[in-house]
Amino acid sequence: MKWRKYFIPTTKETPKDATAASHILLLRAGLARQLAAGIYSYLPLGLRALRKAENIVREEMDRAGAVELRMPCLTPTTLWEETGRLETMSDILLRIDGSVGDWATGLVLGPTHEEIITDIARAYLKSYKQLPINLYQIQLKFRGEARPKSGVLRTREFLMKDAYSFHHDLETLDKEYENMYATYCRIFKRCGLPYTVVEAESGAMGGDVSHEFMVMTDAGEDLVAISEDRVYAANLERAAAAPPEAGQDDDTFAELEEVHTPGAGRVEDVCAVLGTQPRQMIKTLIYTGVAPASSRFDSDVAPASSRSEAVRVVALVRGDHEINEFKLAKAAGMMLELADPETIEEVTGALVGFAGPQGLVDKIDKLIIDREVTVLRDAASGANKTDYHVTGVNPGRDFPLDSAGTGPGRYGEKVVVADIRNVVDGDPAPIESRSPLHLRTAIEVGHIFMLGTKYSDSMGATCLDKNGRARPLIMGCYGIGVNRIMAAAIESHHDENGIIWPMSLAPFEVLVIALDSKDERANKVALEVHDELAAAGIDVLLDDRDERAGFKFKDADLIGIPLRVVVGKKSLAAGGVEVTERGKESKEIMPPEAAVEHVTKLVRQELNKLAQ
Amino acid sequence: MKWRKYFIPTTKETPKDATAASHILLLRAGLARQLAAGIYSYLPLGLRALRKAENIVREEMDRAGAVELRMPCLTPTTLWEETGRLETMSDILLRIDGSVGDWATGLVLGPTHEEIITDIARAYLKSYKQLPINLYQIQLKFRGEARPKSGVLRTREFLMKDAYSFHHDLETLDKEYENMYATYCRIFKRCGLPYTVVEAESGAMGGDVSHEFMVMTDAGEDLVAISEDRVYAANLERAAAAPPEAGQDDDTFAELEEVHTPGAGRVEDVCAVLGTQPRQMIKTLIYTGVAPASSRFDSDVAPASSRSEAVRVVALVRGDHEINEFKLAKAAGMMLELADPETIEEVTGALVGFAGPQGLVDKIDKLIIDREVTVLRDAASGANKTDYHVTGVNPGRDFPLDSAGTGPGRYGEKVVVADIRNVVDGDPAPIESRSPLHLRTAIEVGHIFMLGTKYSDSMGATCLDKNGRARPLIMGCYGIGVNRIMAAAIESHHDENGIIWPMSLAPFEVLVIALDSKDERANKVALEVHDELAAAGIDVLLDDRDERAGFKFKDADLIGIPLRVVVGKKSLAAGGVEVTERGKESKEIMPPEAAVEHVTKLVRQELNKLAQ
Repeated sequence: MKWRKYFIPTTKETPKDATAASHILLLRAGLARQLAAGIYSYLPLGLRALRKAENIVREEMDRAGAVELRMPCLTPTTLWEETGRLETMSDILLRIDGSVGDWATGLVLGPTHEEIITDIARAYLKSYKQLPINLYQIQLKFRGEARPKSGVLRTREFLMKDAYSFHHDLETLDKEYENMYATYCRIFKRCGLPYTVVEAESGAMGGDVSHEFMVMTDAGEDLVAISEDRVYAANLERAAAAPPEAGQDDDTFAELEEVHTPGAGRVEDVCAVLGTQPRQMIKTLIYTGVAPASSRFDSDVAPASSRSEAVRVVALVRGDHEINEFKLAKAAGMMLELADPETIEEVTGALVGFAGPQGLVDKIDKLIIDREVTVLRDAASGANKTDYHVTGVNPGRDFPLDSAGTGPGRYGEKVVVADIRNVVDGDPAPIESRSPLHLRTAIEVGHIFMLGTKYSDSMGATCLDKNGRARPLIMGCYGIGVNRIMAAAIESHHDENGIIWPMSLAPFEVLVIALDSKDERANKVALEVHDELAAAGIDVLLDDRDERAGFKFKDADLIGIPLRVVVGKKSLAAGGVEVTERGKESKEIMPPEAAVEHVTKLVRQELNKLAQ
Repeated sequence: MKWRKYFIPTTKETPKDATAASHILLLRAGLARQLAAGIYSYLPLGLRALRKAENIVREEMDRAGAVELRMPCLTPTTLWEETGRLETMSDILLRIDGSVGDWATGLVLGPTHEEIITDIARAYLKSYKQLPINLYQIQLKFRGEARPKSGVLRTREFLMKDAYSFHHDLETLDKEYENMYATYCRIFKRCGLPYTVVEAESGAMGGDVSHEFMVMTDAGEDLVAISEDRVYAANLERAAAAPPEAGQDDDTFAELEEVHTPGAGRVEDVCAVLGTQPRQMIKTLIYTGVAPASSRFDSDVAPASSRSEAVRVVALVRGDHEINEFKLAKAAGMMLELADPETIEEVTGALVGFAGPQGLVDKIDKLIIDREVTVLRDAASGANKTDYHVTGVNPGRDFPLDSAGTGPGRYGEKVVVADIRNVVDGDPAPIESRSPLHLRTAIEVGHIFMLGTKYSDSMGATCLDKNGRARPLIMGCYGIGVNRIMAAAIESHHDENGIIWPMSLAPFEVLVIALDSKDERANKVALEVHDELAAAGIDVLLDDRDERAGFKFKDADLIGIPLRVVVGKKSLAAGGVEVTERGKESKEIMPPEAAVEHVTKLVRQELNKLAQ
């Protein structure tokens, strides 16, 4: 490909509002252009990288035995009603308006395709003999992101590989989950991404076993907890610390004592007045929720609004800890919302900011105590009296634990001890080593889920088992953000001058630079090198522009083609052409034919290395 | 690929409402599944065919020097406002509703991308030195079709190749138009389509030179006029007949005579009463329109509602002819609508159905006479009096022609003689041979347009010429319906048993059938043949299902893989495997290794033949 016939609008300007390296370089290197908030055009160079990622994903999915199909972007709302997600996902579902006709309001742009594939499954997968099968597509997805950001990391339209496996038993689901896990590892390695696999929450997808494939980078929007020994990794929603060790077993419990703390609502302010630390305080948070019809916990938690009986729940965490809403919902068995000030005042008898656990249990429906709170001694808390706190609060004495133990679990109907907090930096990992956890930001590039029968149950997708009985299909699902692969590659591989593409994603593998457009001999040699590389199947770009050498080198660094062959008067005088690698210092002068051979070998070697 | 691990849900049932062969076979062969009206999932076999078509299009566009990029499906309404198409295309634009936030109402799903590419062009194409350039994408498009039908021929979501070329002079536009014309011929030939190129109207796209690439088939939704000698072809909107020959130049003109024709509004009824033929009648149609601000004719005709001054227009065509709205709008210089009954009564003084040209010219703003009407003698028409017609109507005597000539043209401000009718079967073609025209139905698979400066003018997309002056970019655009390639291939290549794929689009090139799943030796040979063909780069499917031979043959015919290798007891006893071609009678038994070689050669030969 010749640069002059191509379209690479590089720019020196750093786009305003862009802070992530991938975002800045995406725009500066002419890979993409924003059309609207969270909506990008892929310019030729960006599209080449995106399609390379797409092809790697496709090749590896095919190799893993998955079968490709393609579902539409426009999907009928009726299917989303069957699973209830028309309502539960309404904040991100883009719906079509009725200006062309009422029929259009029955359509929604799919942000994911569980409903659609399950509809296909119930139509065609009738017998266990057809199972297991893993159906996938690489297709555009649409999400009504309220605040899209960071270039192509969080957008309203994106390319996704989504796969859905169907099973008649858990054994084959386990096996396919492992198959996909291994396939994802291969995919991300081939793409040159330094990825980490973490345990994850399933969220709106449902199911209970789930892993995310993360690329650690400052630009990431997800938080991951990794143990220092790298044995344990989980996303923040899921990550747990090792259970706390029991406190000293002495008898010296301080007495409850009220302290006047006028206007001190925040933990820091209270600590200043009481002369204590946040880790010695108990935060008392009041929630309201709606108990589900069935008391059995189920990961498919109903939204607060759709059930009937309103309940009051109090959650206790240490003053230096934050509530984890996912864990809290699990412990409560229902979705919860922070109570409004009126309810808080009614429950505590005080203004907001002065709640404490003592004496509350009779006024509420459920008390959920974080494990770390159970081992506190002589803690401080709100006094349930406006402008007052108390010191000397002791769990088990001043509020019930229903057990003096420290492990997680359920202690009766009303009082629950559980892990309901986010881990913090330095927490011991929940593994034998108790290696300290560290929190890092990451880009989620892949996510795999064991869904179970969530969708097949609600949509009536069954197949006949060996005995001729209809059983709900058991499902797994497996997603990869293709655009994010590209962005994560840039985040992981760049320097101050531009991108350093992994060979497998590079829009072009080799850049040939004719240094001086007036030098006919150099131009001729450059063109020959280009043509021979192209004939050898190498993706090669020839910079044949009528520009200064310095300008060309700056653009070369910016667009980040891994290998470079420079042809100029100087190199020819020194015996040939100069071969360099992007991001490395080494230079080598060799005859043009040797350079073609050498560069071809380097490309193949690097691609093989990534694919191993 | 092994059938048992794959997903090909064939069915014997002919889907209700499906009449087109491509529609029926699409569903029966398990290529696609309808998700909602005009919205299809491509099942694995259908997706493979679709992607083969897509790849052929991409390869040929690349070879032609076009540069691929990818624009989003979600596009901002602001760009559509700039060209006025948010209003003029409002009947097919799918807009996003505001349920996720008001921002979403600013988005529309692109049915075509002139506005988006012109926005990219005005951002980056600043100098004539960057031109010409042809930017293309292969991407989903969305259209709010009121009545989608015929399977994937007319859908609400479809895959399209759309290319847009930019120029600073007409010479390079002409050259690129020819380049695309030739490229389209290559593409459709490679896809095995028997296509015809026809002159076309540009319609909503704008511009004046335009060609459609048509595949003739009964299932087509477009009408094409082709001369018997195949020299002339145009779509119905565009097709013209040769001008009429002047009538006899004698002096015997009949007098106008009123005839009582109570209740006879339709042409046939009137003819019955008058004892004449439709071809001797003049149909008098009354329209209303809004004159454009500028009187200059311009293909970018404004909608009737957006301008100010309302006018009344009368159009005359022969009783056996139909008005062509495109031609009428051109002749009138504005968009027209049929007048309401009140206006008709006001103009004619009679109820609807009794209008005639005599005496009307003073009551209207414009009289447009079809060329064929000018050569009528002693014709019949409405009497402008309820329940009466007249005979002996003579053009030039009873209504003005402003010239006795027969050629098209403009005769003064008020009276216009022009070609404003649809051609009919048997009309002489407008070429020297006057070969008779025949009307045929066709599928439009491609369409190329010279757009000129329609979009660059309204969006202010200019580039600097050699003298440093800003000039509007000159544009061409070039579309291909990728799904339609697949449907047209099925329409053109099938028999009563199923599809007969062209080799280039075939989901698999070779089908190996192991006839009896209990016959281990045959199974082993079939597997070996499959593996060796796959190793040779052939797309091969192995029917390894535990089904009866007859069932397998029926499915084989249905899914239409071009080459078949059958392995059974009988063939092995006869010395090997049986090689057949779909749709042909010939059978050949040969040793397995020879069959692999033979079949590989046949595939390559056929692909080369199509690509020539």
